[in-house]
Amino acid sequence: MDERYNVLFEPVKIGPVTAKNRFFAVAHSAGMGFAQPHATAALRAMKAEGGWAVVCTGVCEIDETSDMMGHQNDRLWDDHDVACHRLATDEIHKHGSLAAVELAHLGLGARNLYSRVPALGPGSLKCTSSYVPTQSMPMTIADIQAFRAAHRRAVGRAVAAGYDIVYVYAAHDRALPLHFLSTRYNKRTDEYGGSLENRMRLLKELIEDTIDEVRGRCAVAVRFAVHDFTGAISAKEEGRAVIEALGELPDLWDVNVSPWSFDSSTARFAEEGFQDEYIGFVKALTSKPVVGVGRFTSPDAMVSRIRRGLVDFVGAARPSIADPFIPEKVRTGRIEEIRECIGCNVCASTEMYGVPIRCTQNATIGEEWRKAWHPERTSKFPGQQSALIIGAGPAGLEAALTLAQRGVEVSIVDRESDLGGRIEWESKLPGAQTLARVRDHRIYQLERMSNVQIYRRSPVGVDDILQFGAQRIVLATGSHWRTDGVGPATPNGITGLEHVHILSPEAVVGGAAIAGPVVVYDDDHYYVGHAVAEWLRAKGYDVTLVTPLADVSQWSYYTLELRRIEERLEDAGITCVTKTRIKAGRSGALLLASGRKESSIACGTFVPVTLRTPDRMLMDELEARRSEWQNAGVESVDLIGDAMAPGTVAAAVYAGAAYARELGEARRSESFLRERAVL
Amino acid sequence: MDERYNVLFEPVKIGPVTAKNRFFAVAHSAGMGFAQPHATAALRAMKAEGGWAVVCTGVCEIDETSDMMGHQNDRLWDDHDVACHRLATDEIHKHGSLAAVELAHLGLGARNLYSRVPALGPGSLKCTSSYVPTQSMPMTIADIQAFRAAHRRAVGRAVAAGYDIVYVYAAHDRALPLHFLSTRYNKRTDEYGGSLENRMRLLKELIEDTIDEVRGRCAVAVRFAVHDFTGAISAKEEGRAVIEALGELPDLWDVNVSPWSFDSSTARFAEEGFQDEYIGFVKALTSKPVVGVGRFTSPDAMVSRIRRGLVDFVGAARPSIADPFIPEKVRTGRIEEIRECIGCNVCASTEMYGVPIRCTQNATIGEEWRKAWHPERTSKFPGQQSALIIGAGPAGLEAALTLAQRGVEVSIVDRESDLGGRIEWESKLPGAQTLARVRDHRIYQLERMSNVQIYRRSPVGVDDILQFGAQRIVLATGSHWRTDGVGPATPNGITGLEHVHILSPEAVVGGAAIAGPVVVYDDDHYYVGHAVAEWLRAKGYDVTLVTPLADVSQWSYYTLELRRIEERLEDAGITCVTKTRIKAGRSGALLLASGRKESSIACGTFVPVTLRTPDRMLMDELEARRSEWQNAGVESVDLIGDAMAPGTVAAAVYAGAAYARELGEARRSESFLRERAVL
Repeated sequence: MDERYNVLFEPVKIGPVTAKNRFFAVAHSAGMGFAQPHATAALRAMKAEGGWAVVCTGVCEIDETSDMMGHQNDRLWDDHDVACHRLATDEIHKHGSLAAVELAHLGLGARNLYSRVPALGPGSLKCTSSYVPTQSMPMTIADIQAFRAAHRRAVGRAVAAGYDIVYVYAAHDRALPLHFLSTRYNKRTDEYGGSLENRMRLLKELIEDTIDEVRGRCAVAVRFAVHDFTGAISAKEEGRAVIEALGELPDLWDVNVSPWSFDSSTARFAEEGFQDEYIGFVKALTSKPVVGVGRFTSPDAMVSRIRRGLVDFVGAARPSIADPFIPEKVRTGRIEEIRECIGCNVCASTEMYGVPIRCTQNATIGEEWRKAWHPERTSKFPGQQSALIIGAGPAGLEAALTLAQRGVEVSIVDRESDLGGRIEWESKLPGAQTLARVRDHRIYQLERMSNVQIYRRSPVGVDDILQFGAQRIVLATGSHWRTDGVGPATPNGITGLEHVHILSPEAVVGGAAIAGPVVVYDDDHYYVGHAVAEWLRAKGYDVTLVTPLADVSQWSYYTLELRRIEERLEDAGITCVTKTRIKAGRSGALLLASGRKESSIACGTFVPVTLRTPDRMLMDELEARRSEWQNAGVESVDLIGDAMAPGTVAAAVYAGAAYARELGEARRSESFLRERAVL
Repeated sequence: MDERYNVLFEPVKIGPVTAKNRFFAVAHSAGMGFAQPHATAALRAMKAEGGWAVVCTGVCEIDETSDMMGHQNDRLWDDHDVACHRLATDEIHKHGSLAAVELAHLGLGARNLYSRVPALGPGSLKCTSSYVPTQSMPMTIADIQAFRAAHRRAVGRAVAAGYDIVYVYAAHDRALPLHFLSTRYNKRTDEYGGSLENRMRLLKELIEDTIDEVRGRCAVAVRFAVHDFTGAISAKEEGRAVIEALGELPDLWDVNVSPWSFDSSTARFAEEGFQDEYIGFVKALTSKPVVGVGRFTSPDAMVSRIRRGLVDFVGAARPSIADPFIPEKVRTGRIEEIRECIGCNVCASTEMYGVPIRCTQNATIGEEWRKAWHPERTSKFPGQQSALIIGAGPAGLEAALTLAQRGVEVSIVDRESDLGGRIEWESKLPGAQTLARVRDHRIYQLERMSNVQIYRRSPVGVDDILQFGAQRIVLATGSHWRTDGVGPATPNGITGLEHVHILSPEAVVGGAAIAGPVVVYDDDHYYVGHAVAEWLRAKGYDVTLVTPLADVSQWSYYTLELRRIEERLEDAGITCVTKTRIKAGRSGALLLASGRKESSIACGTFVPVTLRTPDRMLMDELEARRSEWQNAGVESVDLIGDAMAPGTVAAAVYAGAAYARELGEARRSESFLRERAVL
C-alpha cells in the first residue's frame, strides 16, 4: 500500500467502541430487510469481509407506527426481529468490524399500510410517501412520551441484537425528529414548537434516551441532514444550531443532505463530494468523530477529506455496493481494481420497487446468500475450457472477465475498434459519462490477464465462429434502436415516416447529418430519450421532446431523478410535450395526438426512442447449423444480455455474470435459495 | 329464503367436481400471497365459510419467469409453496367448498425484478409493468416448449396442493397466452403467429397440457378476457374465435374484460353488470359452465343473469371482499344485511402497494388470521357496558354497530339531521354515490337493535357528555377542509387569499353562493378535488382544476383510475392545469407558478382541496377536565377516525372497528400476529 493511504487505516474511537479504520459503510436499504434475513446478513457481512470498519443496516423501523411494508426495510419491532438481526451482527463481528443499526421513525414518511395505525407528526399533515391520502395524527405530549418509550424499547432490542453502534435517525426529510425540527412541518405552540431550542427538543430527548438506554454498552450515533434542498432544513439555521447545541451529546455524527433524492444524487446531477460545502462546518463544532458521504471511490479523494478536516470517517453507501472490497483493495495496493460506483441509482430503484438490491457495476450484490456469489472470488472451472465471446458490450465484457477469472481461455471479439458496445456511444451523452467505468474497469482487468485475447475491429460470421475452435460460444451481440416508430404506444409503428428524416439515437451520437428542428420521441422513459435531446440541444438545434406519459423520463422516478430532468431540459431550452403520442409523419412535420386533440409540429429530423431490436442474427444462423457444432468442437452456444432481452446496463452485466458463474455448475439462473415463511 | 333465489343454490358440475351452488369467488390478489401463507389461508377460508361454492386464489405465479416481487402474489414455484397452499385448500374444504387456483404467467406484465431472468414474450417487446426499462425475450419454439413444460410442472404442484380446479390464465392484458393471441403484441411469422388459429395455439396447448396433467383429478378452467378496451383483443374477433374453437375443451370458462382497470372499473366509471354486453355471447358457444363478474351485490341481479342465460355462476371478487357472507345471507333470508361493495378500489390500491388487502366496507378483510377478526362475529363484551359515540360518520357508525353487536348499550349522537358525517356531502359528488352504502348499511342495522339509541340534530358539549352517564366516550367528530391554502405544496398557506372568494368543498356542496369562474386547487390528489370540479361544472360554472402534480388525481393511480379521470374532466369542459402551484391571491385572480414560470388566472371562487383539520376540540376540552371523569362514571375517552388522523373512509371505518373490537381485549391495534421467516 502507498504510504499516503495510511491515514485511512488509523483506528478511530467511537465512544466505547473502536473502529479499526476510517471506512464506514453507512446505512442503505437492501430491499430485503425483515423478509429476507439470511440474504440481508450475507450482504452486510460481505462489506465486513471487504474491510469496512463499520457496517450499518438500512433504515430500521422501531415499531408498527413507522411501517413501510411494500418497501422491504429492516425492522426491530420485537424479539423475533432481534433473532433476524443476530444473523447479521454475528457475521459482521467475525470480520472484526463494528455493526451499526439505523433505528428510525419515518414520521410523515411512514405509510403504515400494514400496521394500519395513524402516522405520527408534529401536526395533522399530509403523509409524504406515494401521495397516500392520509394525514398524520398531531402528537400530544402524551403521544410524544409514548413514542420516546417505544424508541427506547427498540434501542434495547438493538443492544440485544448485538449492535455496537445505535443510531438516532434525523435525515432524508423522512424522520420524525426532523419533522419536529423544521418550520415547514412544525407549527406547534407548545414546548416542542416555535424556537429552535423547542423544535430540536425531540431530537435531543431521543439522543439522551438512547444514551441512557445503552448504558455504555455501545456507541450512540446521530444521522442528521444538515441541509435540505426543498427548504425544510437550512444548513445555516437548523443545521448549525443542532450541532452547536448537541454536538457533544452523541458519540458520532453522520451528516448528510436531504431529501434522499439529493443525498443520493445521480452522477447526472452532482459531482462526487458535492456535499462538502454543506457539511463542512460540522467538525469545527464538535469533538466527536464525523462521518460524511460523497460517492467517493478514489482513496486520494478520501484522504483529502480527512486531511482537510472535513470528516473523520469516509462514509459510503453506493460505492460500498459497487465494490464491497474498496478498503481491502486500498490496503493491499490494488486501487486500480476498484469497481467504481457510476452513480446511476439502479440500487435506489430496487428499494422503490421493494425488491432486492441491484447494482450496475457489481452483479453479485444481493446474491451473496441465495446464489453464494462472491464479488471477488469465483470457482475454478473444472478442466480445460475455451470460450469465444462475440461482442464487447457490458454483457460480453462481464462474461469474459468472469470466465477468465475461472481459468477459462477467453477470446473476446468486437467489430468496432472502440470496445464497450452501447456504452461506447451512450457514455458520450450528457450526464452518462460515468457509464464508461463499466467498460473501462473490465477492459483494464482483461488486458492484464494471460488467458484472454481481445480482438478489436473483428466482425465475425458463422463460419469464423465454427472454425475458431472454442468450446463455448457466447453471443453478446447487443441490440439497436428501431427507427420505424414501433413502441409501446404505437405497436404497429408510425405511418408516413417516409416523409421525414429519421435517425436512431446511435446515429445521432455517431455523427449523422442532422437537420433542425429535431423531434425526439421518448416512449422508452429512461435516459436515452432525454439525454439525446440534451446532446442535440447542446449542438444548437431546436429540440422538442415528445412523450406519451405525464412526465419526461417517467422511469427516472425510480432513480430519484423525476422532474429534475424535466427542469433541466426546460432550462436548456428544450420544449417538453407530455401526454402526447406521435401519430404520423407528414412532409417536414409530425402529427401529434394528445387525448382526442391533434396537432402538428415541424420536424427536420425525427429521433424515435421507442424500442430496441435484439441483434440475434448470429444466433439464428448458428441454430440453423446446429448439426455442425459437434465437429467444430462447440459444446454450447448462448445468447446473453441485450441480444436476448434489451434492458438496462445493469441487466446486461448481470446476464454476463450469471452465464459465466453458472457455466458448468449445477445451479442455473432461475435456481436460487429462497427465504421461507414458518408454517 | 325467498324461493326466487333457489336457482342460486343449485349444484353445478364442473368436469369431475361439483360446486354446491352458483356463488363463485373469483381470483383476486390479497396483497399477502407467498409471504403471508397463514393470513392468505384464513382470508380464503372465510369466503368458504360464507358459503361460496368455489374459492379461488389470486394470480398464482407458475415459476420465476413470471415473478412479481413487490406485489405479493401467490406462488407455486416449488414444493415449499405447495405446503403454503395446503393451508388454504384444507381450510376451504372444511366448509364444503371447492378450491381453485389461478395459475398464471404474466408474460410482458412480469417484472422479474427478484428472479432476474428475462421476461417472456411473443417478440422483443417493452415489459408493461411500471415502465420497467426492459424488453421481453422473443420466444423461440424451444422457449415455448420449455414454458409449456414449466406450466405443466406447476399444474402438478397445484394438484399436489389439493386444488379442485386449476386455471389457465388469459386475462387482464397480462397473460402470456393473451399476448400471443393479440396482434398488438404478436408479430410472429411462424406457427404461433399470423392467423387467429396460430395466435391461439399457445392458449390451446396450455389448456390441453393442463387437462393432460391433471388426469381427471380436478377440473380445468380458463380465465379469458373476451374483450380488451385498449384494443389488444376484440370480443367480435379474437374473443368469439377462441370460444368457438376451444369452447368445449376446458371444464369451465371464467370470462371477463380487459385490462384490469376496466375489469375492475370503479363505480365512478361503470355500472354493475356493465360486462354483460361483452361476455353475453359466450354461453351460446359452449356447453361448459360459464362464470362472469359484474360487481353484483343484489341476489335479484344475480338471478336475472342466470335466468337470462348469461352465466352459470355468479362470479365476484370485490363483492366477496366487502361481504364474504353474501351466499349465506341470501340462503338464510338476510339479504338486507349484505354489506355491499361500493366499487371504490381501495382493495386494488393495496395490491398496487404490495400490502395486505383492505376494504372500505369490510374492516375485517385481511385481519382474519393476524387479529382473529370475523366479519360476522364479535366477542360479547364482558358485563354491563355503555358507550356514547359523538359523530355518526364512518368511524362512529362502525364503532357503534360493532359495540352494539358486542352487547354494549350504545348511544350515538350527531349534530346533523342527516347522518353520515363526510359521507353525507361526499356521496352527493359525481361518481361517489355508492359511498352512501357505507352509511346506509350501518344505520339500517343500528335502527333495528334494541340496545342502540340514535340522536339526530344533537350538538353536544363537554357538560352534556359528562352528564350523560356513559362509561365509554368515543369522539368520532371528523374533520373539515382547510380554507387557508395550507397543504403539501404550500406549507405556510397562500398569501393574499383575502382578495378572493374562498369556499371549502363542503360549503360548495352545501349550497354556498358561488361566483364564476371557479378555480379548484387539488393538492390532495384523491377524489374530492376532481369531483368538486365536476359538481361545479355540472352546475354550469367555468371551472379550472389546478394541481402541483403531473396528473390530475395522482393517487387514483392506485385505484386504477389515473388518466381516465382527467379525460372525463376534459370531456366535461374543465380545464386541467398540472405541475402548477397556486402562489398567491389577487383581486379576482390567482397567481400560478409552474417551475420558474408564473401566470395569472381569473377567479370568482376559489376552492382549495389541500388538507383537513381534525375536529378534536371536544377531546381537548375533555382532556382539560380529566379530573371530572371518574365522578361522571367515564372510564375512557377515545378519539377515532378522521378526528384523530384524516384519511380515507376505509381508514375511518377501520378505526371504528379497531376501537370497538379491541375495547376490553388484551390485543390492541398495534398488536397482531406476524408471519415469520425461517431462521
